[in-house]
Amino acid sequence: MIKVGIIMGSDSDLPVMKEAAKVLEEFGVEYELTVISAHRTPKRAEEYAQSAEERGIKVIIAGAGKAAHLAGVLAAYTPLPVIGVPIKTSTLGGADSLYSMVQMPAGVPVATVALNGAKNAGLLAIQVLGVADKELRERFREYKIEMANKVMETAAELEKLGYEEYLAKYSR
Amino acid sequence: MIKVGIIMGSDSDLPVMKEAAKVLEEFGVEYELTVISAHRTPKRAEEYAQSAEERGIKVIIAGAGKAAHLAGVLAAYTPLPVIGVPIKTSTLGGADSLYSMVQMPAGVPVATVALNGAKNAGLLAIQVLGVADKELRERFREYKIEMANKVMETAAELEKLGYEEYLAKYSR
Amino acid sequence: MIKVGIIMGSDSDLPVMKEAAKVLEEFGVEYELTVISAHRTPKRAEEYAQSAEERGIKVIIAGAGKAAHLAGVLAAYTPLPVIGVPIKTSTLGGADSLYSMVQMPAGVPVATVALNGAKNAGLLAIQVLGVADKELRERFREYKIEMANKVMETAAELEKLGYEEYLAKYSR
Amino acid sequence: MIKVGIIMGSDSDLPVMKEAAKVLEEFGVEYELTVISAHRTPKRAEEYAQSAEERGIKVIIAGAGKAAHLAGVLAAYTPLPVIGVPIKTSTLGGADSLYSMVQMPAGVPVATVALNGAKNAGLLAIQVLGVADKELRERFREYKIEMANKVMETAAELEKLGYEEYLAKYSR
Amino acid sequence: MIKVGIIMGSDSDLPVMKEAAKVLEEFGVEYELTVISAHRTPKRAEEYAQSAEERGIKVIIAGAGKAAHLAGVLAAYTPLPVIGVPIKTSTLGGADSLYSMVQMPAGVPVATVALNGAKNAGLLAIQVLGVADKELRERFREYKIEMANKVMETAAELEKLGYEEYLAKYSR
Amino acid sequence: MIKVGIIMGSDSDLPVMKEAAKVLEEFGVEYELTVISAHRTPKRAEEYAQSAEERGIKVIIAGAGKAAHLAGVLAAYTPLPVIGVPIKTSTLGGADSLYSMVQMPAGVPVATVALNGAKNAGLLAIQVLGVADKELRERFREYKIEMANKVMETAAELEKLGYEEYLAKYSR
Amino acid sequence: MIKVGIIMGSDSDLPVMKEAAKVLEEFGVEYELTVISAHRTPKRAEEYAQSAEERGIKVIIAGAGKAAHLAGVLAAYTPLPVIGVPIKTSTLGGADSLYSMVQMPAGVPVATVALNGAKNAGLLAIQVLGVADKELRERFREYKIEMANKVMETAAELEKLGYEEYLAKYSR
Amino acid sequence: MIKVGIIMGSDSDLPVMKEAAKVLEEFGVEYELTVISAHRTPKRAEEYAQSAEERGIKVIIAGAGKAAHLAGVLAAYTPLPVIGVPIKTSTLGGADSLYSMVQMPAGVPVATVALNGAKNAGLLAIQVLGVADKELRERFREYKIEMANKVMETAAELEKLGYEEYLAKYSR
Repeated sequence: MIKVGIIMGSDSDLPVMKEAAKVLEEFGVEYELTVISAHRTPKRAEEYAQSAEERGIKVIIAGAGKAAHLAGVLAAYTPLPVIGVPIKTSTLGGADSLYSMVQMPAGVPVATVALNGAKNAGLLAIQVLGVADKELRERFREYKIEMANKVMETAAELEKLGYEEYLAKYSR
Repeated sequence: MIKVGIIMGSDSDLPVMKEAAKVLEEFGVEYELTVISAHRTPKRAEEYAQSAEERGIKVIIAGAGKAAHLAGVLAAYTPLPVIGVPIKTSTLGGADSLYSMVQMPAGVPVATVALNGAKNAGLLAIQVLGVADKELRERFREYKIEMANKVMETAAELEKLGYEEYLAKYSR
Repeated sequence: MIKVGIIMGSDSDLPVMKEAAKVLEEFGVEYELTVISAHRTPKRAEEYAQSAEERGIKVIIAGAGKAAHLAGVLAAYTPLPVIGVPIKTSTLGGADSLYSMVQMPAGVPVATVALNGAKNAGLLAIQVLGVADKELRERFREYKIEMANKVMETAAELEKLGYEEYLAKYSR
Repeated sequence: MIKVGIIMGSDSDLPVMKEAAKVLEEFGVEYELTVISAHRTPKRAEEYAQSAEERGIKVIIAGAGKAAHLAGVLAAYTPLPVIGVPIKTSTLGGADSLYSMVQMPAGVPVATVALNGAKNAGLLAIQVLGVADKELRERFREYKIEMANKVMETAAELEKLGYEEYLAKYSR
Repeated sequence: MIKVGIIMGSDSDLPVMKEAAKVLEEFGVEYELTVISAHRTPKRAEEYAQSAEERGIKVIIAGAGKAAHLAGVLAAYTPLPVIGVPIKTSTLGGADSLYSMVQMPAGVPVATVALNGAKNAGLLAIQVLGVADKELRERFREYKIEMANKVMETAAELEKLGYEEYLAKYSR
Repeated sequence: MIKVGIIMGSDSDLPVMKEAAKVLEEFGVEYELTVISAHRTPKRAEEYAQSAEERGIKVIIAGAGKAAHLAGVLAAYTPLPVIGVPIKTSTLGGADSLYSMVQMPAGVPVATVALNGAKNAGLLAIQVLGVADKELRERFREYKIEMANKVMETAAELEKLGYEEYLAKYSR
Repeated sequence: MIKVGIIMGSDSDLPVMKEAAKVLEEFGVEYELTVISAHRTPKRAEEYAQSAEERGIKVIIAGAGKAAHLAGVLAAYTPLPVIGVPIKTSTLGGADSLYSMVQMPAGVPVATVALNGAKNAGLLAIQVLGVADKELRERFREYKIEMANKVMETAAELEKLGYEEYLAKYSR
Repeated sequence: MIKVGIIMGSDSDLPVMKEAAKVLEEFGVEYELTVISAHRTPKRAEEYAQSAEERGIKVIIAGAGKAAHLAGVLAAYTPLPVIGVPIKTSTLGGADSLYSMVQMPAGVPVATVALNGAKNAGLLAIQVLGVADKELRERFREYKIEMANKVMETAAELEKLGYEEYLAKYSR
């Protein structure tokens, strides 16, 4: 059963947003993924948000750039938690996407992650689902341990090789 | 007949947005003025935008702050030109309101004026209506002349008094 | 049973952060509220985060300003979702607090809301808990309707009175 | 008959500004397009703005970068609505162009669109002309529908293929 | 004979711009001071700039805020050096005024000083006039020495009193 | 024997910079405190920096605002570590002071602390002196413990009173 | 006789700063050009600034990046006008260089031009020298006319060819 | 004996951070270099910081990007001075890394250097160690002289060759 909806404002956001999908796959959580534009297909955004809950969706992830209204528009129409991924474009260092997404007015929160932080959006969805799913929470805890272990291995190799050899090995 | 709709996201925007209304009154253009929240009353925003044209509205002015989506949401649902007034709040110097309003994606423009620039929003509405209304265009030309004359008078008085006397006269 | 922990970096954040508590009270969700400094009491931050889950906490809300590491430090030590409230101080328009909180690296998300957005942090906690609590989700839906109704009433009054009378009534 | 003047500060702005021209062509609206520098050819800017109305121009679109005064200078000399396109250059993330264009003083509005938003400038010109041209307004409405349909088709294909196949198909 | 023209975009800039006048008085350099708006009285700006040289003006000082085009417009019409004072307003921390003034295109420089730096604009005018006026240069050198002496005296008093007594003496 | 020099660009920086002095007093470290302007008394800055080491100074703390060159100028003339305190003024949110101080070129570091972070500058000086002074390091460790204890006490009181009573007790 | 000194903080600034030299050559004004680091060779900066006037230098142009103190340090030691060129580096969009240069304290102005605006620095030097050199002023006036003519020719060609042919001709 | 610990948040920071190591090698100061993530391996960060002093470490250098908490986390757990290197990533011009590192609360300083300023972090460590090591201080003084000499040689060659020949020689 599909539990997470991953929505993006344009297919140009897909190379970033696919990271959220990958995380959900890794955790075995079903999701759907599509393109809805808050400004070009506003009616579809409304319908998606309004029907999501009854279709069994638990969390919505929305990615958009520049005047990034998508997450806010969805949040306006649903009681479900909406996670926002501000997409970095070439203007204003990404501040436009970030501010448009995070600075929501009282009453309609968007859970905003870092610029291009789609992977973290996926993980946050896991954490939210984990509130009522002990197994998922357990798997997330393991994920954190594996992540730590990978950093430890990197550290061990760097300490062993020294920076020159390490850079020579991993740089082109 | 009402030709301009002035919409704001919250009644806290009214001290700024009333300047747009005053300009329209000065030019004898009928308007309506109300509060619609893009995030708290999204359905009403949709209905307003969709019905505006058939009700005879020609231009919409929308003011909002922070993640200022109101103008964009209205523009998504109407073919009418939408003029956006980013409202300055206490955060980020106002950059959040400005970026959220002006950085619209291709296909859905918002005609953005300065932070708190509600007076200019009113004047821009006059200019837009003036495209098909020679008399209004004429009045706008006169408005510009009067505005120039006021600056000239200020200049003349300052030149005559010198800065010390001028400041003494006009400061408390 | 306590389900939400509201943590702030300093008691000077309390006038902002109390809004999160008020929301939880309004929804009948038990919470605890305290001060933990990521930099001055790092050990306590670690212990709090590590024990939160087994104590039954489901969501953590963390507010901090400037180099606002608190939410990130807690997130590092717990699998629970952490909601971050960047506190606006007098420097850099609040960009320091916001960037320090939202720009988390892959693997450790913080669900960031607006600058000083403690009320939305509370609501987001409700939404997260609502994923597994139909009644809470229902109450949130009602909350949204009431919120919309309040905006409608404001709008109706403003439309009735006109901006001059309305401002005269509500301004000092 | 020429109804829109597209002006840019330098021929280096042409790759951006041609998008405004393309939109006007698509809608069958005649335009003229040229280079006028507010700072290097100020007299020509003045003459252009002062004669535009009597030559039948209804809307002026002006694009410029950095200390982007062109739109403001034209607006100072004409009662016609002026649409400004801030051109992104390599400095300050484009904030210089945007602020110089949008932050106009009371009395002289510039209808500013997004950084490099020349396409939207063209569409806004269509909307402005549409105020007095029902057919154009109708065509703009259709344009919005086609735009929505294209997003729907993209969404349908992405949903059908899944993100991996979709990316494989459309990436190099 | 009047050698320096001090121009400001609005009489609201006078409390800042009068500092330039005071400096010139201190150095015994004649000046004129008036209000010219680049946007509201563009023709007057043009005429002022074009006639300044033949009227004997050697340097122009121009102060303006927000989309601060005044200095650039004057520079477009005169071969004289133009010194720009970006006026800080309440928006965007003053970045709008600064960027609009300093980011001039190649060919038309504006010698920009700090936000609200009207005193330095006056001193820079003295330095420019000093290029051809040995006596003025000499007086500027003395000015620098006096300025240094004042800092020395402050330092001596602070060293003697200690910070507590010093603050008690000079704070209210 | 004086071990730390606290320098500020103007006596207007004293209300901020005195916090560095207070910290040093608390730790029993002798210091001198004076005003030296990098721009108005450059020669004195040079002489101070060049003689500091032989006079027994071990660390220099320098506070300045806007184009805050003082720390960099001192660092250019001495091999001693220089700690910089960017002073927040009313312009640009303090970014001018911060960037001018921290963005030093390779070869001449300035150890920059937070905007108005004079207290931390004092503590950093203690830490630097502590590298060769075990007792001082010990006292700094105790300082950290006391600081933690104070946060704990605050937390305990807040937990006991609840936020309403706590705010009532500590607010005016 | 050498009238202008062009100084830069590093030879990496030369590709930008050579534009100032080219302008001076074009106007037949003798200059010297060298590298002086405010932080690595502070003594040389002092000596250069102190001896410049007696060696006949009339204007100094200084270019530097990041914590760009060079212009300010030179200005501290000379009564001559100092023109500053903030060099754009890869950090902070260039805001660091710009703020460090332009935000000088009262008493020590730096005439700042645009980021990487070395050409304008050269032209400003010509304008400053032109205050006492009618011929140079005359040549500058001609320069402005030629510059305008070039823009006119560009405009004429673009108008004749249309944007498609024009872009085809001038793009690779 | 190892006196300096160089820590970075990820091995992707190594190309920047290796410059700190190189400086320490040049000065003959022993160091260790490894990867510790404040968010992925928080326990290891704690243990490293807590044991550093007793292992003889005198100074810690920490480099991290985006929400750059590493230096602050280490500083929370050790009385040793911590030098922070904000790593520039592609977002927000690097302001996120810088603000997260430098804006530390009172009580826990981080000695922050420029964005990507790892070389200066190494030199600052030398200066700090030099407080108690006259020989090291002496070597740092020589380092400054050599650095100055290199600038002088560059200047001499540029003066001799002129900018055209110099650029031809050193550009590809």
